[in-house]
Amino acid sequence: MTAPTGVHLIAGRAEPGTGAPFAAIDPLRGTGLDPVYREAGPEQIEAAAAAAAAAAPVLRALPGQARAALLRAIADGLEAAGEPLLQRVAAETALPLGRLQNERTRTVNQLRQFAALVAEGSWVDARIDRGDPQRAGTPKPDLRRMLVPLGPVVVFGASNFPLAYSVAGGDTASALAAGCPVLVKGHPAHPGTSELVGRVVQAAVQAQGLPPGTFALLHGREPGTGAVLVQHPAVAAVGFTGSHRAGRALFDLAAGRSAPIPVFAEMGSMNPVLVLPRALRERGPALAGQLADSALLAMGQFCTSPGLVLWCAGPGAAEFAAALAARLQAAPAGPTVHPSIRAGYEQALAEVRALPVQVAVAPAGGAGPAGATGAAGAATAVCPALVLGSGELLQRFPRLRHEIYGPAVLGAPCRDAGELLAVVQALDGHLTGTVHGTREDFVEFHAVIDALRSKVGRLIANGVPTGVEVCSAMVHGGPYPAATDARFSAVGVTSIQRWVRPVCWQDWPAELLPLELRDDNPLGLRRTVDGDLRG
Amino acid sequence: MTAPTGVHLIAGRAEPGTGAPFAAIDPLRGTGLDPVYREAGPEQIEAAAAAAAAAAPVLRALPGQARAALLRAIADGLEAAGEPLLQRVAAETALPLGRLQNERTRTVNQLRQFAALVAEGSWVDARIDRGDPQRAGTPKPDLRRMLVPLGPVVVFGASNFPLAYSVAGGDTASALAAGCPVLVKGHPAHPGTSELVGRVVQAAVQAQGLPPGTFALLHGREPGTGAVLVQHPAVAAVGFTGSHRAGRALFDLAAGRSAPIPVFAEMGSMNPVLVLPRALRERGPALAGQLADSALLAMGQFCTSPGLVLWCAGPGAAEFAAALAARLQAAPAGPTVHPSIRAGYEQALAEVRALPVQVAVAPAGGAGPAGATGAAGAATAVCPALVLGSGELLQRFPRLRHEIYGPAVLGAPCRDAGELLAVVQALDGHLTGTVHGTREDFVEFHAVIDALRSKVGRLIANGVPTGVEVCSAMVHGGPYPAATDARFSAVGVTSIQRWVRPVCWQDWPAELLPLELRDDNPLGLRRTVDGDLRG
Repeated sequence: MTAPTGVHLIAGRAEPGTGAPFAAIDPLRGTGLDPVYREAGPEQIEAAAAAAAAAAPVLRALPGQARAALLRAIADGLEAAGEPLLQRVAAETALPLGRLQNERTRTVNQLRQFAALVAEGSWVDARIDRGDPQRAGTPKPDLRRMLVPLGPVVVFGASNFPLAYSVAGGDTASALAAGCPVLVKGHPAHPGTSELVGRVVQAAVQAQGLPPGTFALLHGREPGTGAVLVQHPAVAAVGFTGSHRAGRALFDLAAGRSAPIPVFAEMGSMNPVLVLPRALRERGPALAGQLADSALLAMGQFCTSPGLVLWCAGPGAAEFAAALAARLQAAPAGPTVHPSIRAGYEQALAEVRALPVQVAVAPAGGAGPAGATGAAGAATAVCPALVLGSGELLQRFPRLRHEIYGPAVLGAPCRDAGELLAVVQALDGHLTGTVHGTREDFVEFHAVIDALRSKVGRLIANGVPTGVEVCSAMVHGGPYPAATDARFSAVGVTSIQRWVRPVCWQDWPAELLPLELRDDNPLGLRRTVDGDLRG
Repeated sequence: MTAPTGVHLIAGRAEPGTGAPFAAIDPLRGTGLDPVYREAGPEQIEAAAAAAAAAAPVLRALPGQARAALLRAIADGLEAAGEPLLQRVAAETALPLGRLQNERTRTVNQLRQFAALVAEGSWVDARIDRGDPQRAGTPKPDLRRMLVPLGPVVVFGASNFPLAYSVAGGDTASALAAGCPVLVKGHPAHPGTSELVGRVVQAAVQAQGLPPGTFALLHGREPGTGAVLVQHPAVAAVGFTGSHRAGRALFDLAAGRSAPIPVFAEMGSMNPVLVLPRALRERGPALAGQLADSALLAMGQFCTSPGLVLWCAGPGAAEFAAALAARLQAAPAGPTVHPSIRAGYEQALAEVRALPVQVAVAPAGGAGPAGATGAAGAATAVCPALVLGSGELLQRFPRLRHEIYGPAVLGAPCRDAGELLAVVQALDGHLTGTVHGTREDFVEFHAVIDALRSKVGRLIANGVPTGVEVCSAMVHGGPYPAATDARFSAVGVTSIQRWVRPVCWQDWPAELLPLELRDDNPLGLRRTVDGDLRG
């Protein structure tokens, strides 16, 4: 199956939707892409949720090796899908093939990392406190605890990473690894990609002999489909990557349920960058180029795009600002993944234009690339922009402290170190914070850096925030509104912690305990026994 | 200072409140206890929150050894407070001194367990993925991650454990251990106890040279004080133990903030008990006695009191039900900690009396111990009750699936194993689930037991749910409404996970990294380096 056919994947079946029609849009031409999809009807959502509920106890009981086999089969299937899959992604997103090859590599690596994690098995954090019937006072019970899956997880894919943060992306991989059935609400900007990837997942589920409710893909253009899923009694948790507006709406729905469920929503970020005085003086223009290149990656459609740059007045400041403006103004317009991204970007620029800041866009005069040709003339094209404000303006106008999604950088020079500190303290939560400086800068500005640390999930020294390494130490998340719960990461093996809860067995018959908790440790796990980590 | 003086503890000061007056009530006599307290005024709440915000960065930077010293000083202070403290607790709660001695032991043990945890230090879950500048494609960055405190935590103590779940209880101990300042909203049923314990904490903070905002105690009888605290921008998280109504209200306030914060609310439980057929037949009457004794502990004022007992029709069923009724009816009336507990209990019994169930109370005729003398005649006294329903009624009437807080047990015989399974599947979340059975029972009823597991945080075999061992493997929490987030426990060292978030440092200057993340591991922590756990 190399071309999408317009179907939902529900309970092991592939079937057209029963709701309103929609289609993907070719970002370059602005025209619809075949096939036509129909939104999921209420009975289809119900069928998918019921199948997920039925699959949950089976997946929970599935040995780690079997979960690993599923994840590896999905990874293999994505590789086997080859060029036709990437061609479809490119057609729906206008992202270049080279980038998509890298994104697929990342996606299969994520799946295989989780496979290795659950095949080994110690992630369940088994803790055993053995009993003591002779303890003075009251006998000490035998207590054994491990992590178990929450149940069906609804995953909302993002438009900007159609593979790594979508149908078989990090949320799906971590939820399946945890033993949770997954209900994906496909992003309406790339339904064909979603279908092709979903078929790979569905085939892997089938090949591994797992219940058909292990995985579902539901399409929907309007918020209704997702809202019904999040409120469904069978659903136990939600993973989301996207805009603050959509993420917060889902969070509110989940919190308003009669039985609230956890939502991990990663909702974008300005990724503030501090350029400290010595770095500014020694390598300002080079840094400006480096930051602009980072901000221009995929036309600014990275969660970690550096959208806010702060520096202090002083030697090199003018040159830095000029270089940043020049680099961004010289960059060509280019397509985004969907007309709604362009509309949002232009709306955001219009909002900041109403404030006393300078907005420098090339070609001068507007974000629209009127008359341009090729990619720059695409239906979804936007022009890079430097919004030049100041530390004072940033404190005065809340709009300037919110993301402009796209290739825009807000430059905010501060009068002095005191104003820089005040500005950082006034920031909301962000995914990352970057500091450029010499050793002396880091020491002198330690209070500012400490304030920045309190606002972000990841701190970067003398680098760029784009590029999210998938590894154990990564944190992709942060204080609200970067994420709805700063205690979790969306990337790396620790992201499995979002979908599990501890259960404790007290004085349980030894041979009926889960294998992870038995005295003879048949799985050879690393466990905490009577307070000591062993194995 | 052995007698309370009616003060709040704010920013290192002790001062009377500026709001409406209230006093503790002697549960035996129903009369007010000196001194009079006044609720915290808005400016007092503001001062406490501001001091907590100022203390947060200092506590965060405090070495684990220093946090441990604070926790040990609080534990030592509680022991040094001796009999006068326990006398005050007894006066405010009518709980017997022996029980209070045990509760204090548990409280100081909790503090010392957290001291040991943070003195050792590996709990920060340090993960280091070292960089590789030579990696093909893109250089691999150096990434180092550890857990850091969220910031000021508001703690709402419970009325039923005035020491272990109150001012210096598990929430406070775990939050201070994590490096979070604590703002306690004292329970209005025991303000004097709160003040005495709070003074111990305040003195320890002072003796350790820590910022005065490390700890505050605010009194309030009406929900307003707590509501203001939960909505304060400086507050980062909330811990609560109490009723579903109050816990849910706080959860809703926190979720409705412009920047939502996590609330861990533990909100009670029916703690269902399954008595399986062979156990019923072999030892029904003995089990009835054991369960009744558990339900009668502290007049049912345990979060883990067994409030629902399920069994199947068959040999021994009638004898079991009769023994349970007899034991509960024979038990004397006794005081609860506050008139509001009695009022709630009587209201709940009135609600179930309106349903087609049998309510057996001694003395016959009502929950009120009219004419009784001594403890049984106390102003807050309640009578134990057996509510005899059925599996069918439990499924029909939602009220029967909700807790009756106090010494009441709902007995629900089921027609057969199928109905038992349906009843368990219809349950909400609970803290614990208990199974009484022989080996054969456990095997035969594995589907019912698996359904029970999906509803609870802790499973107990052939025991009673009361008695929460404080250890690493304990889980005190569970699916909603047992707790607002099943992913965390309120008891045991893992409860620290509620108050921390991961932060990642990328390519950070080696000598400016936190000690926990440095190459030479100066603290000797167990860490995950390049995916392998070491040390």
